[in-house]
This record gives sequence, C-alpha cells and structure tokens, in this order.
Amino acid sequence: MTGVLTVVGLGPGDARWLTPAASAALAEATDLVGYGPYLDRAPERPGQRRHASDNRVEIDRARFALDLAAAGNRVAVVSGGDPGVFAMAAAVFEALEGGDPAWRAINIRVEPGVTAMLAAAARVGAPLGGDFCAMSLSDNLKPWEVIETRLRAALGADFVVALYNPISKARPWQLGRALALAAEFRHPATPVIMARAVGRADEGVRVVPLAQADAASADMSTLVMIGASTTRLIEREGAAPYVYTPRVYGVRP
Amino acid sequence: MTGVLTVVGLGPGDARWLTPAASAALAEATDLVGYGPYLDRAPERPGQRRHASDNRVEIDRARFALDLAAAGNRVAVVSGGDPGVFAMAAAVFEALEGGDPAWRAINIRVEPGVTAMLAAAARVGAPLGGDFCAMSLSDNLKPWEVIETRLRAALGADFVVALYNPISKARPWQLGRALALAAEFRHPATPVIMARAVGRADEGVRVVPLAQADAASADMSTLVMIGASTTRLIEREGAAPYVYTPRVYGVRP
Repeated sequence: MTGVLTVVGLGPGDARWLTPAASAALAEATDLVGYGPYLDRAPERPGQRRHASDNRVEIDRARFALDLAAAGNRVAVVSGGDPGVFAMAAAVFEALEGGDPAWRAINIRVEPGVTAMLAAAARVGAPLGGDFCAMSLSDNLKPWEVIETRLRAALGADFVVALYNPISKARPWQLGRALALAAEFRHPATPVIMARAVGRADEGVRVVPLAQADAASADMSTLVMIGASTTRLIEREGAAPYVYTPRVYGVRP
Repeated sequence: MTGVLTVVGLGPGDARWLTPAASAALAEATDLVGYGPYLDRAPERPGQRRHASDNRVEIDRARFALDLAAAGNRVAVVSGGDPGVFAMAAAVFEALEGGDPAWRAINIRVEPGVTAMLAAAARVGAPLGGDFCAMSLSDNLKPWEVIETRLRAALGADFVVALYNPISKARPWQLGRALALAAEFRHPATPVIMARAVGRADEGVRVVPLAQADAASADMSTLVMIGASTTRLIEREGAAPYVYTPRVYGVRP
C-alpha cells in the first residue's frame, strides 16, 4: 500500500496565520518530517511520529519522507511560510525525479501558506503593490553570477525585489553586494524593509533608506525588500510611516 | 473617535485557506467593504453592516472605507488572495496619501493571505521553486511599454513569471502578446500553467506547453504562470504530471 505525502506550509511564525487546510493536513498525518523548530509548531497528537532534522539537508529529508510515504504512511513534510517558495516542495520533487521509481505512485500534495514576504509587506503597508520579484540570495544551489544577472534585470526593470535567505554565517557578503547593486539603480532614499522573524516573539521590522541599509543588521531569519523607484512612505504622527508601492506607474489616472 | 481599518486577505476561494487571523478581523468589524462576491465569503454577523461595490472602483471603495473608519467604525476591507498583491491594500494607501488629512489618524492594518499564485502553484507541484516575478498584465494603471519591458527583463533573466489580471473584455490582446514574447525567450515545450478559479467550485487548472498556450482559454479569474528554462514535468501514470522548478540552477550539487 502506497501512502500520501503532503508538503504543508505553516505560514510565518504566528499560529493565527496557519490555514485550516494546513491544520487539517497536520492532524491527519501519521508522520511529521521537518526542521525541528517547524515541527515544534505543530500541535502534539497521540500516536503521531515526529522526525526532526536540521535545516541544511532538505534533499535527504525529502528522500526520507518519500520512503516513509512509499511504505504506506501518511506523511506531512512541514515547511515554514509557503512550501513552494524557497522551501521544501521543490526539494521533494527534486528527490522524486531522481529517486526510487516506486515513489512515483505516492500521492503528493502541496498545501500552500502565507509566505514571508506577504507577512512582512503587511506589517509595513503595501510595498508589493506593484510588480515584484522574489529571489533567494543563497548561492549554495546556483552560481552568484546568475543571482547578480537576475538582480540587475529586476532592478533595471523597476520591480520591487524581495530577497529570501539574504545572509548566513557561510554567506556573509552576498547581501552587502546586493544592496550595493541596488544603489546603482535606485535613489539613496528608496525604502528598504528588513523584516526579521515576522509573527514570532522576537519579531523586528525596520524600514530604512537604501543608503543606510546595513547587511549586518540582517540574519538568516530576515526577509529583505528593496523598493521600486515609486515605492514611498506615508508619514504618521507618533508611529512608523506606512510603506507602499502605488499600483499606478508612469501614468496619472 | 477614530476607528480602525483592516485590509483583510481572504485567500483564494476555498474557506479552508482563510487564516484564523483573517477570520478574526472579519468577526471584529462593524463594517465590511468590498466587491460583492468577496463579501459573500465572509460569515454573516448580526449587526454588521455590508457595503458591496463592483470590482472596478478600488480607489472609490478605499475612500469610502477610510471615511467610515474616520467616523469611528471598525472597518474591514475584504480582498481576495493577499491584499498586498494586486489587490486592495495599495489602493487604500493611495487613497490615504491623496485624501483627507484626518484619515492619517486611522489605525490601518493589513492582514495577509494566501495569494493566487501560491495556491495555483501548489495544485500542480512547485513551479515557483526557483526565483520568480509576479506582474499584473493590466495596462489600466501603467503603460503597456512598462509591462513589456518588465516581461523582457524577467524572461531574459530566466525567472518564472506569474501573471495576474491576464485578460478581460476590455483587455483582450495583452495575454497573447505576453505569450508571444515568452516564445522569444523560452523553448516551445516550456510548461505554462493556466489556473482558473483555484479553490472555487468551478476550478480548472491546466498545464500546457508554451507553443500550445492559448490566451483565449484564460479569463479574469485565471492566474497564468510561465516556467523558467529549468521548469519541468514529472510524468505519472494515471494522473497529470507534476510541474516543478528545481532549486538548483546551473550547477550540479
């Protein structure tokens, strides 16, 4: 008997962003597979098995989950945010494509979630109100040259740019390089959003002008958004300004 | 007394994708403002007022909602998907910026949701597994030349491209032009996803090679995704193939 594998998006840290569909998928699973801190966000269920791993072995974790499902279990692979955006879903399909042909009989589903850039954007206003690109700044799985080419294209065509995986101990200079590239295309006052751990107890969201954006203030849990030329602030008394990108571009409605 | 305005993302059509936080924001509102079919998705509450409008007057709807909030009401502006992605949040901030200074005292919040491209991607696999861009194909609020420049940049740098608002009665040729542009950059076999009304009773999701992608098969409720050069199919017996974009690009891990 072949089982089921659902890649479940938990959304950002706050449980109030976990969809009912994702909750149901977690509840129905016999086995939960994932990075420890994500597993900790799934409610405990009697009889349900948990298989925690560290955060840097996605493909091994995917193979392990596929094996479990092929043996007839109902497996939920848990993922932060949306599993299809720089998270576990693509890793599962990569493992499937190159792996045991028996895995093809598994019913694989993906349960979407609120991805980090949406929650970060909501915290400050509507910076993604115009066209935007989402990129992973990690050069573990693609050459830096590809990242730089894409950054230049996105900045040059005046997209808002959301950067996932901006920095880590093993990748210390990439975000600084990306911000320097942005400065070639954007005014120094362009709003940059540094959104750390949105929805978690240690959340910290800051909006700074590009000229003052400091890569050292970001970490692995930070989502960085670089505004388009039209992204702007609306000042308020006694509160941080709103940040938004108008839907209107290059015309007066 | 100045009230509160929350722009609430309902997610795609299925109520199981409505987050608990969005549900709570709907429940707490004295007034719901939005496009009629979205309002119909909010559970009825005794004493709660509903203000339905048609779908093409976002800025007027935003002003109306700001007036209601300025008068001391708790207003929820309902939006499909995520309100920050080609939906009501940017319209509210546009109205705020150009409007009555008294509106600046309103506490405006955005409640994020699952945006259409995430749900559409989840239905077929993980097509957004690499870097991607999201664009509105509507040239009501920006010139077509800007859209074409951005399409060329995104296609040229090998992003996956998600197209919102691909076609309408008033905009019949834009999607065809975008697909023709894609054909200048991508192999004819590149997977194109036409995801209509995901999460609703009349959902229809199809994956076709770019060479066979037909703009006439899309409508206002369709989300179109054009794969990157690396986006691929995994064939299955007795079911539609999975579609995914590997995280790996240009290197062998």
